[in-house]
Amino acid sequence: MTTLQNNTRQYVEELCQRYRRWGQWGSEDEHGSLNFITPDTLVRAGELIRTGKVVSCALPFDENGPQSGRFGGRHNPIHTMVQDGGDIAIGAQDHIKELRFTDDTITMPLQCGTQWDALAHVFHKGRMYGGHGVEHVTSNGATRNSIEKVADGITGRGVLLDMPKYYGVEWMQPGQSISSADLAGAAEAQSVEVGRGDIVLIRTGQIAQVRAEGTWGTYEAGDAPGLGIDSAHWIFDKEISAFCTDTWGAEVQPNDVDGVYQPLHLILLVNAGIHIGEIFDLEALSETCAAESRYEFLLVAPPLPITGAVGSPVNPLAIF
Amino acid sequence: MTTLQNNTRQYVEELCQRYRRWGQWGSEDEHGSLNFITPDTLVRAGELIRTGKVVSCALPFDENGPQSGRFGGRHNPIHTMVQDGGDIAIGAQDHIKELRFTDDTITMPLQCGTQWDALAHVFHKGRMYGGHGVEHVTSNGATRNSIEKVADGITGRGVLLDMPKYYGVEWMQPGQSISSADLAGAAEAQSVEVGRGDIVLIRTGQIAQVRAEGTWGTYEAGDAPGLGIDSAHWIFDKEISAFCTDTWGAEVQPNDVDGVYQPLHLILLVNAGIHIGEIFDLEALSETCAAESRYEFLLVAPPLPITGAVGSPVNPLAIF
Amino acid sequence: MTTLQNNTRQYVEELCQRYRRWGQWGSEDEHGSLNFITPDTLVRAGELIRTGKVVSCALPFDENGPQSGRFGGRHNPIHTMVQDGGDIAIGAQDHIKELRFTDDTITMPLQCGTQWDALAHVFHKGRMYGGHGVEHVTSNGATRNSIEKVADGITGRGVLLDMPKYYGVEWMQPGQSISSADLAGAAEAQSVEVGRGDIVLIRTGQIAQVRAEGTWGTYEAGDAPGLGIDSAHWIFDKEISAFCTDTWGAEVQPNDVDGVYQPLHLILLVNAGIHIGEIFDLEALSETCAAESRYEFLLVAPPLPITGAVGSPVNPLAIF
Amino acid sequence: MTTLQNNTRQYVEELCQRYRRWGQWGSEDEHGSLNFITPDTLVRAGELIRTGKVVSCALPFDENGPQSGRFGGRHNPIHTMVQDGGDIAIGAQDHIKELRFTDDTITMPLQCGTQWDALAHVFHKGRMYGGHGVEHVTSNGATRNSIEKVADGITGRGVLLDMPKYYGVEWMQPGQSISSADLAGAAEAQSVEVGRGDIVLIRTGQIAQVRAEGTWGTYEAGDAPGLGIDSAHWIFDKEISAFCTDTWGAEVQPNDVDGVYQPLHLILLVNAGIHIGEIFDLEALSETCAAESRYEFLLVAPPLPITGAVGSPVNPLAIF
Repeated sequence: MTTLQNNTRQYVEELCQRYRRWGQWGSEDEHGSLNFITPDTLVRAGELIRTGKVVSCALPFDENGPQSGRFGGRHNPIHTMVQDGGDIAIGAQDHIKELRFTDDTITMPLQCGTQWDALAHVFHKGRMYGGHGVEHVTSNGATRNSIEKVADGITGRGVLLDMPKYYGVEWMQPGQSISSADLAGAAEAQSVEVGRGDIVLIRTGQIAQVRAEGTWGTYEAGDAPGLGIDSAHWIFDKEISAFCTDTWGAEVQPNDVDGVYQPLHLILLVNAGIHIGEIFDLEALSETCAAESRYEFLLVAPPLPITGAVGSPVNPLAIF
Repeated sequence: MTTLQNNTRQYVEELCQRYRRWGQWGSEDEHGSLNFITPDTLVRAGELIRTGKVVSCALPFDENGPQSGRFGGRHNPIHTMVQDGGDIAIGAQDHIKELRFTDDTITMPLQCGTQWDALAHVFHKGRMYGGHGVEHVTSNGATRNSIEKVADGITGRGVLLDMPKYYGVEWMQPGQSISSADLAGAAEAQSVEVGRGDIVLIRTGQIAQVRAEGTWGTYEAGDAPGLGIDSAHWIFDKEISAFCTDTWGAEVQPNDVDGVYQPLHLILLVNAGIHIGEIFDLEALSETCAAESRYEFLLVAPPLPITGAVGSPVNPLAIF
Repeated sequence: MTTLQNNTRQYVEELCQRYRRWGQWGSEDEHGSLNFITPDTLVRAGELIRTGKVVSCALPFDENGPQSGRFGGRHNPIHTMVQDGGDIAIGAQDHIKELRFTDDTITMPLQCGTQWDALAHVFHKGRMYGGHGVEHVTSNGATRNSIEKVADGITGRGVLLDMPKYYGVEWMQPGQSISSADLAGAAEAQSVEVGRGDIVLIRTGQIAQVRAEGTWGTYEAGDAPGLGIDSAHWIFDKEISAFCTDTWGAEVQPNDVDGVYQPLHLILLVNAGIHIGEIFDLEALSETCAAESRYEFLLVAPPLPITGAVGSPVNPLAIF
Repeated sequence: MTTLQNNTRQYVEELCQRYRRWGQWGSEDEHGSLNFITPDTLVRAGELIRTGKVVSCALPFDENGPQSGRFGGRHNPIHTMVQDGGDIAIGAQDHIKELRFTDDTITMPLQCGTQWDALAHVFHKGRMYGGHGVEHVTSNGATRNSIEKVADGITGRGVLLDMPKYYGVEWMQPGQSISSADLAGAAEAQSVEVGRGDIVLIRTGQIAQVRAEGTWGTYEAGDAPGLGIDSAHWIFDKEISAFCTDTWGAEVQPNDVDGVYQPLHLILLVNAGIHIGEIFDLEALSETCAAESRYEFLLVAPPLPITGAVGSPVNPLAIF
């Protein structure tokens, strides 16, 4: 619940400075808050593997995804076969001895589906995380904070905060925002402690709504439930390494700050160096957490190390 | 070391039938030998997380990859920025309030870099794993055995077999083949037991050679060290769930069977239902295993769930 | 106006055989009815250049085109800058002496906009023009009747038949079909004689409707005005070399034959070897013809010689 | 023949100013020297159609083209079938009544083959033709001088200057430059007058060399014969509308000016507003001109109207 005075550009600017971690891990750092993940936290996360269940949090990558091209030309993946069973049938591979094969290719915006934003994905006042300028992201790709720099992450203790369950609804409504108190409340209700280095998965249920209603509706860059400006405090204070949601842009839409688009991206990604995941499918995870009666697990969600990329598709696995 | 009589199409056909697992997990099964991974094996694999080190086994996805288009038109990834720092500089995003962003897209053959072959990737005598025909892979994609069917895999105990170390060389030579005895010997030398459900990573060192010589040389579809036909016995008998190598095609090139291209793909992928990984970068893993004095770890290497795909890029993580 | 008995598969089959030109220009022919264009007809067509006006009949190739992916995944062109003014601004080209440049790339289905169908684009009962089988079009492209075989065409006397003008309407209605009598009537009303080798451009006005209504509506693979089965007689008899329309698929939709999709493609493209153009923008041409009081001109509309392609985008120019 | 003093940046700057046509056709002009083509010149060009021969000047668009990715990541066209004969064979289209079809798609840099540079393709000192700044070409495309602005061109009288024939060689050598005197001499030797509005095609024979030697050699962005700085005078004075060559970059390589890459692009494209065509295949044209004993014809070479593009592939037709 934000107050009116928090609803301003000035407030966002204040939080940007208050929560700035530039230099905290050296001037050349490109991992940001992923630095909170240490061998120790990882070993403890590994101990969460107790029942051997695995849940994928990726939406299928196909033409039924959320993209329509409305935002920046982002389209759904275009998957094309370059050798297929038909070729085998009509003899196109008869020059090969015994073996026959199929092969395929993809054309996809790197943020068209389940994905991580790289730290090079967002700029504020001409600077990205670490204070680096726009000249570091040319048409040739990013030379700072690009996604392959965290190729051996993003892995650690995962915690699901199941907000609809906390609110007692099937899914949150578009426009409904999540505050720091809400996040704290959900964690408490689920009896889970969030701590340094954790990767927090925040479920709004919007994908449940999409499935129930049979349409993406406003999912893509339109009205959505999500994190409000007030959530910045909890997210920063907990020293989490990364967070993700089941929505297109993580933040409540319309944003609850006047004159700033996606303010949390400015505060948390640009300044606090926190990788943000979007379009994670948390429906199966919600069910498994309920069935397991626990909201913590090992989360393994490494990006593809695409050199110079500012985002990456990912198939995040929660291992119980 | 294969004997002459083993060097024939007939022998391959015999092994195809001997090692056929079609129906072992039901007629509708699309997981193949990944079925050997159970909650139990996964829990035990989780116990291998003891020092909290993470090693990525992916080659960078970029224009410096191994592909030249020589094989089936496979090219290196084409990464293109669709919004970049230059756009920010020249005001192309001035209609957005405060936030500025970068965005990108990729066009890539799904098997251009570090990747898993789906069970739909290979056919023999008109059949893929499970006995399904060519009509299941049209230009619209695969409807059987496609890669998204194993979206919540491929995760389990990983074992590195470091063959150059076993042979006492820097890297294996193109054309040099690995037998069942070699695999068993390497495991023994490394004091590691390979068992049911394991994912076995077999290092030939060819990527070390590529780096030392500064050229991909014959890496792409040309002469390479790799698994010989004789290795089929050990791989089948151990009931491993999947295996991968650091070469383009896993098998020794030229293949050591007359009249059959990539015979192990026919025996092990098509018939035994074993997913095969290729172009894994095992150099850092080799160093870490040596440093840790152990060759086992949790391997988490899920494909992207690209609907209907017959392969997937992957960033495999070994967690110690 | 077709009669009921003409409304059958059997009738289509009869016309396929009656209008078959396979072998008319030799068994190896890949030009089909473009053979009707001779040096003589081209010289006479050149004489139509009298006022020096030029009209492009291409729709812009961009994201506002008619495709939505509904038909066979065909999407609008994806145009991406790979070097742009922003790169210049942020110094990405400062290694180049003095010159700065921009550069771009496109991903597009070859039939997403104004385009020619190649003779390899359609099969009937397993055969394309000339009687060649499906084995001639693999995933590697077409080895017969592909579009680059007519790279030095499609050029000749163009004749516009402006059907809405003939009917006295702004545009034809979706579902309204054009008969042989209609085509003859329009030619007569326009005082233009259609003859051997002509390229006939048939305007339905559907693009005018799209523009007036501000939506593509059913344009893409949905209800449309167009050629009815009865038009086959006139088109064949006139010995024209090619024809095109301003609609997605040339033929009236729904087709006016039971049990056959796009019957004229079978009769005229597959059997008579007539290249068919689609999604031509004939609005400006209609105005110019009216202003010039003549419906004939030199039409120059060569495909791009994309090796093995089964269609090609084109910018057709009418020169008066 | 350039003198030493002409070999400088200062001299290029002087020519840039001397040959600047900005504003000559109004401040909003986006056609540049194509304005020299008038209805009159076009009518006279039409009169050149006398024997009805047609010659395509396009290189096939396929994987055998000149690109290797060395320059700006430009690669050869990637042509992919999305429906093919194999699909028909295995029943993938059995839901369609009677008709079967093939379909395809392409991914290609717009300047990978035979192509026109748009006036938005080159900047000098932050300005393109007309004086417009870099902010007019963002990642979303060009809003000034983009290629679709000349969609109803580039058509007019074409004149081939066959330089190897003039020099009495099979092909010009890489590094050999063409001067104004050479161009004038070749025209005279061929008994052809070059005049206002003409499109001049300048053959160096480099494609003949490529074919004879079976390799692209230095064709792509490497050493090449071509126009020297001195040719600017003749090209400007003749008031031609556009010119093209059979080389990668039109200009001699290495360029014959110190400290300026592709100086003629700065003088002629940026300042004189002359569209430049590259990678035209002029071999067949050379033969036809010789056979016809004339070096003039109607040239029809319209770009594809790709909205916002800075170049376009083209299939230029010379009609005799």
